[in-house]
Amino acid sequence: MLKAAIVGATGIVGQQFILALQQHPWFSIEALAASRRSAGQKYGEALRDPATGALRWYAGAPADKAIFDLPVEDAETLEASRFDVIFTGIESDIAKILEPQYAKSCPVLSTASAFRYEDDVPVLVPGVNDDHARLIEQQRQQRGWKGFVSPNPNCTTVGLVISLAPLVKTFGVDTVVMTSLQAVSGAGRNGGVLSLDIIDNVIPYIPKEEDKVRREACKILGQVTTAGLEPLPVSISATCTRVPVMDGHTQSVLALTSRPAKISEAREAMESFGQEFVDLGLPSSPRQFIVMHDDPYRPQPRLDRDTDDGMATVVGRLRADTAFDNGLQYVVLSHNTKMGAAKGTVLAAEMLVHKGYIG
Amino acid sequence: MLKAAIVGATGIVGQQFILALQQHPWFSIEALAASRRSAGQKYGEALRDPATGALRWYAGAPADKAIFDLPVEDAETLEASRFDVIFTGIESDIAKILEPQYAKSCPVLSTASAFRYEDDVPVLVPGVNDDHARLIEQQRQQRGWKGFVSPNPNCTTVGLVISLAPLVKTFGVDTVVMTSLQAVSGAGRNGGVLSLDIIDNVIPYIPKEEDKVRREACKILGQVTTAGLEPLPVSISATCTRVPVMDGHTQSVLALTSRPAKISEAREAMESFGQEFVDLGLPSSPRQFIVMHDDPYRPQPRLDRDTDDGMATVVGRLRADTAFDNGLQYVVLSHNTKMGAAKGTVLAAEMLVHKGYIG
Amino acid sequence: MLKAAIVGATGIVGQQFILALQQHPWFSIEALAASRRSAGQKYGEALRDPATGALRWYAGAPADKAIFDLPVEDAETLEASRFDVIFTGIESDIAKILEPQYAKSCPVLSTASAFRYEDDVPVLVPGVNDDHARLIEQQRQQRGWKGFVSPNPNCTTVGLVISLAPLVKTFGVDTVVMTSLQAVSGAGRNGGVLSLDIIDNVIPYIPKEEDKVRREACKILGQVTTAGLEPLPVSISATCTRVPVMDGHTQSVLALTSRPAKISEAREAMESFGQEFVDLGLPSSPRQFIVMHDDPYRPQPRLDRDTDDGMATVVGRLRADTAFDNGLQYVVLSHNTKMGAAKGTVLAAEMLVHKGYIG
Amino acid sequence: MLKAAIVGATGIVGQQFILALQQHPWFSIEALAASRRSAGQKYGEALRDPATGALRWYAGAPADKAIFDLPVEDAETLEASRFDVIFTGIESDIAKILEPQYAKSCPVLSTASAFRYEDDVPVLVPGVNDDHARLIEQQRQQRGWKGFVSPNPNCTTVGLVISLAPLVKTFGVDTVVMTSLQAVSGAGRNGGVLSLDIIDNVIPYIPKEEDKVRREACKILGQVTTAGLEPLPVSISATCTRVPVMDGHTQSVLALTSRPAKISEAREAMESFGQEFVDLGLPSSPRQFIVMHDDPYRPQPRLDRDTDDGMATVVGRLRADTAFDNGLQYVVLSHNTKMGAAKGTVLAAEMLVHKGYIG
Repeated sequence: MLKAAIVGATGIVGQQFILALQQHPWFSIEALAASRRSAGQKYGEALRDPATGALRWYAGAPADKAIFDLPVEDAETLEASRFDVIFTGIESDIAKILEPQYAKSCPVLSTASAFRYEDDVPVLVPGVNDDHARLIEQQRQQRGWKGFVSPNPNCTTVGLVISLAPLVKTFGVDTVVMTSLQAVSGAGRNGGVLSLDIIDNVIPYIPKEEDKVRREACKILGQVTTAGLEPLPVSISATCTRVPVMDGHTQSVLALTSRPAKISEAREAMESFGQEFVDLGLPSSPRQFIVMHDDPYRPQPRLDRDTDDGMATVVGRLRADTAFDNGLQYVVLSHNTKMGAAKGTVLAAEMLVHKGYIG
Repeated sequence: MLKAAIVGATGIVGQQFILALQQHPWFSIEALAASRRSAGQKYGEALRDPATGALRWYAGAPADKAIFDLPVEDAETLEASRFDVIFTGIESDIAKILEPQYAKSCPVLSTASAFRYEDDVPVLVPGVNDDHARLIEQQRQQRGWKGFVSPNPNCTTVGLVISLAPLVKTFGVDTVVMTSLQAVSGAGRNGGVLSLDIIDNVIPYIPKEEDKVRREACKILGQVTTAGLEPLPVSISATCTRVPVMDGHTQSVLALTSRPAKISEAREAMESFGQEFVDLGLPSSPRQFIVMHDDPYRPQPRLDRDTDDGMATVVGRLRADTAFDNGLQYVVLSHNTKMGAAKGTVLAAEMLVHKGYIG
Repeated sequence: MLKAAIVGATGIVGQQFILALQQHPWFSIEALAASRRSAGQKYGEALRDPATGALRWYAGAPADKAIFDLPVEDAETLEASRFDVIFTGIESDIAKILEPQYAKSCPVLSTASAFRYEDDVPVLVPGVNDDHARLIEQQRQQRGWKGFVSPNPNCTTVGLVISLAPLVKTFGVDTVVMTSLQAVSGAGRNGGVLSLDIIDNVIPYIPKEEDKVRREACKILGQVTTAGLEPLPVSISATCTRVPVMDGHTQSVLALTSRPAKISEAREAMESFGQEFVDLGLPSSPRQFIVMHDDPYRPQPRLDRDTDDGMATVVGRLRADTAFDNGLQYVVLSHNTKMGAAKGTVLAAEMLVHKGYIG
Repeated sequence: MLKAAIVGATGIVGQQFILALQQHPWFSIEALAASRRSAGQKYGEALRDPATGALRWYAGAPADKAIFDLPVEDAETLEASRFDVIFTGIESDIAKILEPQYAKSCPVLSTASAFRYEDDVPVLVPGVNDDHARLIEQQRQQRGWKGFVSPNPNCTTVGLVISLAPLVKTFGVDTVVMTSLQAVSGAGRNGGVLSLDIIDNVIPYIPKEEDKVRREACKILGQVTTAGLEPLPVSISATCTRVPVMDGHTQSVLALTSRPAKISEAREAMESFGQEFVDLGLPSSPRQFIVMHDDPYRPQPRLDRDTDDGMATVVGRLRADTAFDNGLQYVVLSHNTKMGAAKGTVLAAEMLVHKGYIG
C-alpha cells in the first residue's frame, strides 16, 4: 500500500479525500493534517463545532469510524518524506507556502489554484491530458525537487474540458460560449453560500471563476512538446452563476468547431472518448467516461450527478446550433466534489502511479 | 372607465390579470369568464379545490374581496360586444377558437401563442415596438373584424427583446447566444413543475420555448412597413432551462453587435432606453424601463424581480466578451408573470388606448 | 424464485417496487401491470411523456435496462394465479375493486389504504407487529380467499410506530403529540406537490393524513388475540405539514409513558429494539432497526434518510420533556418511499415468506 | 421628530431597523453605529464585501439612497445623550457592555438577549404586555439610569405569545406543546445557515432556542405587580427546527386550557385580541392584530408572512385536540424579522412614546 497524507483534512475537500481514500486498494491514509488550531486533537474532535458540539461532516456518505480517532497533525510541520503522496485541500495562499515545502520530498496532488498557472506545472484531468504528466520531469529538474506539485483544475473547468476534448480531437474547436449553473457545494464550507442568498434565487457571478475556466481550459486542452506547454488557441466566453442545487455543476455550452461536425459524429466522438483510459481499470475510474442522453430533459443534477459515483461526465441536448454554422450545442453535467475535486484528484494520482510518477 | 373582461380568470395568468386590473384607473373588471365547468359559480367558489376546499389563489398579492363574489361566465358564450377590451389567459388551442369569435366585436389582448406567428398580428412589447400596432389596421381590414387580436410574447422573450432593443437601435445586432434560468411560475398551474422535479435540481429543457424565443424576438425587433412586417435578421441560439426559483427569469446573454460598442455606450443606450415611453406616464408603466446594476452580483431574481412592481427590466454584468470582437455580455432579469405576462399585457392595452386602438 | 407481479407499475410507488425487487434474491418480477391506457406498451414506452418524450422515471436509482422492455399488462384482467405474490401501488378506489379479485388466488401486498381499517386485515410494519400476520388466517376463512390482502400503513405512520414500539413495550405509552415535517415525494406523482406551492414555503395541512396516522398507529401497536385485534388505547394528537424536502419524513414527537422512563433506559430500549428481527437476515432488512444519534443536530433528512438504504429508522434529540412528568421528546426520521412504502412492503413480504404465508 | 440611533447598523437586524425607521413619522435616523472596523466609513462602503465589492444589503426592500451616505460611528464611543432613543441589533456579549453605558442617558430598545432575564427589565411585545412597561420605573430607580433597557423577545417567542395571550386571558392556559419550523433569516448573516446545510433538508435543533422560548413566554405572559414581575406558571414543551424557508416562523401549537374552550370562542378570542392596541393607530401597528384563516392550508409562510407588512400574526387550523380534553391545536405564523425583530421593536418604541417613556 502507498502511504498517503491528507492536508486540510477538516475542510470540505479534505472530507471528500477521506471518502475517496478510506477503502482504497492502493493508498492507505497514514496521516490527517490541518491548521495548528486543530492539531493535536482527534479528527472527530476537530470536526466538532465548539459552540454546539455538532459534528461538521459534510461529505454525503459516512466515514469509517476509525477515521474519527486518527490524530490531526500540524500541516506546517508535517514531515513529507513519511509519505508516498500528499493530497492537499487548502486555501491557495497557504498552498503557496506548504506545497513547495512538501514537494521537496514527496508528490503533492492539490486542489488549490496556487500553482495551476506556472509553466512547469501540469493541470491534470485524468483521461484527457495524461501526457501532460511529462511536465513533472521538467518541474523536478528546474526546482530541484524529489517530489512535485500537480494541481487539479477548478471544478467547473473539469466538466467543460472533458466534454470539449473529443470535439477538439475530432473536429477542432475555435470558440466556446458557456454559461454555468453551479451547485453550492462548490463554494466550500468556510465562506460558503448562505441560504439567505440562494433560496428562491440565482447569483449571476462567482468571483474569479470565469477567468479560471478560460485559462485552465486552454492549458489542459493544449499540447506538451519538448519546448513546453502550448495552450490551445480557443476563445472562450464564460458566464458562471450559482443556483440552489447541492451538488453537480450544469453547463450550457456552444462550441464552434474548426471542421463541420454532424451531430451523429459528435455524439459518437463523445461517447467513445476515454475508452482507453477506462480500460486501464484504475480504481476510481468511471466505467463510461462520457454518458450521453437522448432524452432532452437530461442531464439533471439530482438524477445524474452520481453516475458512476460522480466520476462520469453526463452530456445531453446535443444539437446543431441555430446561430452559427459549425456550431454544436449541448448541456454537460459534472459532479463538482467528485470528478471535479477530491476523487478526481485521487484518480489523477492513480494515473500517475500507473505512469510511474508516484510510488 | 373602459369595460374589461378577463377570460381564463381562474388560471394563474387570469389571477394576475385580476391583480393588474382590480385597482386600475382606466379599466374596470366587468366580467370574469372561464370554462363551462366553472361557469355559474361565484369566482371564490370556482377557485376552491373540490377535494379539500382550499382556495387556489396563486397571484402573490391578495385580490379585493369583492372579486370573489363575481359570477364566473361561460367563456364560450361570452357576449364580446359588452366590453371595450377582453384579456385572455387561456390555452392556445382554445384561444384559436375563442379569440377570433371575440375579435369580431372587441379588442382581444392575449397571453396565448395561438396568433403570434400570423403576418397581420403584432406581438407587442410596450415601449419596444409600439409602432407595430399599425398591423392592427391591416388585421381588421383583412379579417373584417371590428376588434382585433394582439398577443403578448412568451415571457422569456420579453426580457430578451427589451435588453436587445437598445443595442439593435444603437449598434445593430447580428447574433445572440442566450441561456435562460427560468422560474417555475412560468410553467403555469396546470401541468406546472412538480416539486419532485425541481428541488435541488435544474431541468435543462423547456418544450418549444427556444423556438418561440427565436421566432418572436426576430418579429418583435423587426420593422413594420407598408409591405408588412419584416423580421430582424438576427441569428439566435437559445438554451432554456428551469431552476428552483419562484418568479423571475434570468438570462445570460451574448450579443454580437454590427458596429463596435464601447461598454459605456452600451450601458448608456440601455439605461436611457424607453424614456419616452416612461414619460407617457401609463398607469402600469415602470418608472425606469431598464435598471442597470454595476454590482456584479446583480441582478438576482429574489432581490430584483419586484423592481417597479415587476415592470422594470434589470440588467447587470454588462461587459466586453472575451471570445468575440463586437461581443457584449450581460445578465438580464424580467418578472415572468408581471412584465412578462398579465401586467405587461395590461400595459400594452394602456398603450393601445393611448394610440386610440382601444376605447 | 417466487413469482411477483407489480400492479400500478408506472406510478411512483410502482417504480420503487421495481427498484426493491429487480435484484431480489427471493422474488423475480414476472409481470408489470397498469391501467388499460398503458397496457400493451413496453414499460419504457408507457413511462414516456406523450407530449415531450421524456422518460418519467422518479425512483432515484436507475432500473435495470431489461425492465424497460417488459410488456405492461392490463391490471383489470391480470390472472392472479400466475404469481406467488402481487405488489400493488394504486389508488385506493381502484384497490377496493382489484385487490379482492387478486386475493382470491394470490397474496396481495398493498400500499393503498383501501383495506387498512377492516378488522380481519393486518397493517404490518415488519419488525413491529409481525404476530398480526395471524389475522391473515381469519381473513382467508371469513372471505374464502386462497390469498389475502396485507396493506402497509401510511408512510408517516411507519416512522412513528417504529419509534413508539419500544417505548410501548418497555414503559407503556398513554398519549402522543406529534408534528410532522413531510417530504414532497410522499404526495406521489399525480396530484403531487407543485413547486409553486412549496418553494420557500411550508404547507401546514395534508388532507386525511392526521386521521390515518391516529387510526393506523393504534391498530399497529395493538394486540391480536383469538378475539381479534384490539387497538392500543393511546391518545394521539397529530399535525402533519409539508416542507421543501425531497425524501424523508421528520417527526417531532412527545410521548407520555405509563411508567417513568429514564432517558438512558429509553435510549437503550430504542437502540436494542428490533434486534431479533434484524437477526433473521431478511434481504431488505436494515442492519440496525433504530439508529440513535446523540448529536442534537440529527437526524436530518438529507444526511440520514439513506441509512441502510432507507430501511433504518433514525432517532435523535431524545430528552425529558419540560412540560409533562413521564414525557419523552424526540425527533424521528423515516424514509417515506423506502421503509415507509414500497421497500417496506417488500420487507413485509419477506417476513411473510419466513412465516410461511407466501410461497 | 425624535432622534434615533441604530447600533449594529451593518448587521441584518440593523438593516431591518433602517427599513422600519427611514420613513417613520415620529423618529428620524440621526446616527448609524457599528464596530470599530466599520467606523469612519460611509454606510454604503461599510456594507461592501471587501473581496468582491458586492453590497451586502439583506433587508428585502431597498433603503433610501441617502442612508448609504451616512457616516458609520463607533458604537463604543457613541454619545448616547444626543438621542431620544437608541435601537440596538448587536450580539449579546457586546450588548452586555454597551447597553448599560447608553442607558445611563437614553432609552435603549434592544433585540439582544443580554438583559431579557433580569427582574427589572420588561420583555415587551406591544399589544400583549404593554403594562410591563412599569418595570422601567423600577429599573431606573434601582440602576440610577436616566434611560433604560427594553429588549424584545426572541423571534420565535413573539408569534407564540401573541397567539397564546387571548387564550390565557379568556380561558387560562396550563400547558403548551410547540414545534417550530423556523426560517433561515432568523439565524442572522454572520454564522447564518449555510445553503449546504438546509437545501432539501430540515435541521432539528437550534441552540438555546427552546430555553429562550420557555423562559420568555412565561415572563411576557406574567403579571407585573408592585412586588415585581410574576411569570405565568405555564408548562411549555418546545422543539425548534430550521426549514428551507427565507422568512416567517411557523409553529404547530397545542395549548391545554384551564377552562373548557369551544373552538368558536377561541376563534373569537383570537380574532378580537389586540383591537384596543390597533385602535391606538401607532405608525408600525398591524391593522388586524391576529388574522384568522379557515382554509386549512393556511397560514403558509410565503403567502402570509407579509400580511400588514409582516406585523400581523396569522393563525389557522384552529381545532379541538384529539388527545387532551381542553386541548386546542393551531398553527401560527409570524414574520421573524418584522414583528419578530426590528419592526416589532420599533412598534414597542412607539408604544413607549405613547405611554410617555420615550421623548
